[in-house]
Amino acid sequence: MATSLAKLRKEIKNNKLDAILISSVPNIIYLTNYSGFSKEEREAYLFITKNEQHILTDGRYTTAVKALIPDFKLIEISPKNPANELLKKIKVKYRIKKLGIEENNLTYKEYKEISSCFDDLNHFSLTNLRTIKDEKEISKIEKACRLGDETFNYILKKIRLGVSEKDVANKIEFFIKKNGGDLSFPTIVAFGKNSAIPHHQASDQRLTTKDQVILLDFGVKLDNYCSDMTRTIFFGSANAEFKKMYNTVLKTQTKAIEMLNTKYLIHNTKASSIDKVARDYIISKGYPSIPHSLGHGVGIEVHENPHLSPKSKDILKEGMVFSIEPGIYLPNSGGVRIEDLVVLEKKGPRLLTHSLRNLIEL
Amino acid sequence: MATSLAKLRKEIKNNKLDAILISSVPNIIYLTNYSGFSKEEREAYLFITKNEQHILTDGRYTTAVKALIPDFKLIEISPKNPANELLKKIKVKYRIKKLGIEENNLTYKEYKEISSCFDDLNHFSLTNLRTIKDEKEISKIEKACRLGDETFNYILKKIRLGVSEKDVANKIEFFIKKNGGDLSFPTIVAFGKNSAIPHHQASDQRLTTKDQVILLDFGVKLDNYCSDMTRTIFFGSANAEFKKMYNTVLKTQTKAIEMLNTKYLIHNTKASSIDKVARDYIISKGYPSIPHSLGHGVGIEVHENPHLSPKSKDILKEGMVFSIEPGIYLPNSGGVRIEDLVVLEKKGPRLLTHSLRNLIEL
Repeated sequence: MATSLAKLRKEIKNNKLDAILISSVPNIIYLTNYSGFSKEEREAYLFITKNEQHILTDGRYTTAVKALIPDFKLIEISPKNPANELLKKIKVKYRIKKLGIEENNLTYKEYKEISSCFDDLNHFSLTNLRTIKDEKEISKIEKACRLGDETFNYILKKIRLGVSEKDVANKIEFFIKKNGGDLSFPTIVAFGKNSAIPHHQASDQRLTTKDQVILLDFGVKLDNYCSDMTRTIFFGSANAEFKKMYNTVLKTQTKAIEMLNTKYLIHNTKASSIDKVARDYIISKGYPSIPHSLGHGVGIEVHENPHLSPKSKDILKEGMVFSIEPGIYLPNSGGVRIEDLVVLEKKGPRLLTHSLRNLIEL
Repeated sequence: MATSLAKLRKEIKNNKLDAILISSVPNIIYLTNYSGFSKEEREAYLFITKNEQHILTDGRYTTAVKALIPDFKLIEISPKNPANELLKKIKVKYRIKKLGIEENNLTYKEYKEISSCFDDLNHFSLTNLRTIKDEKEISKIEKACRLGDETFNYILKKIRLGVSEKDVANKIEFFIKKNGGDLSFPTIVAFGKNSAIPHHQASDQRLTTKDQVILLDFGVKLDNYCSDMTRTIFFGSANAEFKKMYNTVLKTQTKAIEMLNTKYLIHNTKASSIDKVARDYIISKGYPSIPHSLGHGVGIEVHENPHLSPKSKDILKEGMVFSIEPGIYLPNSGGVRIEDLVVLEKKGPRLLTHSLRNLIEL
């Protein structure tokens, strides 16, 4: 926490701001380590000046905030003291002129209210800070990945005729929670043709016959940091057509990781160029292009920077953690996706997920 | 779905708009019944003109959207066809001048992008439509409440020495999921002094001794609609001080519901006046005021309109569903909250949650 605040203060200085108003929940977690606020409602703001840090929240959180974030001064929002009035007081007290705000998080309505309190609002983003992970963060993601691998081993033993997609998703979730974790996102379990839907919602569909694809995409959240992995397995004996599709995805992933290895050693690589290698390879084998990006950063959020996509402007750097997840989806038969997390280190990429990538037939 | 779209079209007409851009996920669910989009990222927009309805989303959702929302025309967002370019084309095709947008959902950054595509943007809110529930919606909330009541009965049998807050929260969650439901929000389980934190996060703390308060606040989501209930029970034999606190909260809740009954029969009541009755009663008994509102609407979201709070401008009307949840929180000893859902009907309020409200000692 101390480190992230110190990094933020450097940015305040570099951007010649007097203070920053933080509204996004993942950024509040990054700066305070407190994850109790809802992402669906505005329950708190951080107001960080060059020398002081404040947290504005309401009475439901007073006791927790005092106990868990003692180095932030608590300013209590209440019906008598709405956030806007409190912000005006802080502005006067600290003589704030240039304020940084998160334009990609504040709603337009909130922006209008805040702009009535401050004269000089400037977009500020914590993205660059959060994209490069320090050792502690990488270790947290690694722990989440380890529990992800254990979950995959566990669930392989639980898949049998008669289970529904929801049953399998629940078993994955219960295993993660019993082991102290939480979910990074709603677990995707897709049987048969459903695997052709990249973001399929686990349904009541059951495994009633052999010879089906099973796609599992799930993530663990441990100590506020996420993992993310996908495996596609075959229930029964895979036919030649499926094996070809599977091996094409696997080869694509291997090529992407290898390219990362060689290119990264020479110079900082464009994230888009890794995406292109993967995308072109899949197309060259006669399959449709990947209907999503090749990969995304993972940290406090399961989707964050960098983006390995055709239009990404991101440059890959040491300390970045991201997924490599090529996929082929054929609406009338099914899909294959293989997803692993890598961290970019001095020597090249290091895999954080370790589950078997070769085709598993159950 | 057909009904909600028809209601929306009336609003388009009443507001003299040419079309509406819907961005919030709960509103997308309300209008399409499809709940597959993430609330944490912008994955889809609805664009609704007087006669046509479109859904803009990316390739990950193509197959699902075609199958599940066939009456919406799919417009696929891709790196080559970003949302803004697609919106510009729709604008020209349908000659859209006045567009309604959700100012309380679009980020300021998105607003700036969209305002570069359209000349005349106007705030539009679906709140009024969604606040009044129809019979189908009430029946869905009632089903969610029923599973909530069953969950409470189940968990009472599982609380024993040695369990942790997280254990209890997990058991509640697993029971709900095994019965086909989902969670409305992260389950709150608070032992002892933790119950004085209204939004406590379930921790590793264990029930190691008798004579402790246990506060349980959880919600079921079934078929996209939420329930919400809180019970405070006593593990051991409650002392006089706790009983007094408990009975004060219970009496407050009863008074609030009764007032709803009588006042509602005579005329439409201010939501704030119900809050005031409850708040004043708790203060009159020598306890601190409720550090949150007395209640909130529940539907597709677990917190929606109306708000029963001191500054609320909402007027209570037939078809509204909301919580009544007074609480007393004493930081050095513990807290009590009792929360039930009511629907306002012609004849008055009807409870949707039916679990015992008298003090349970385990």
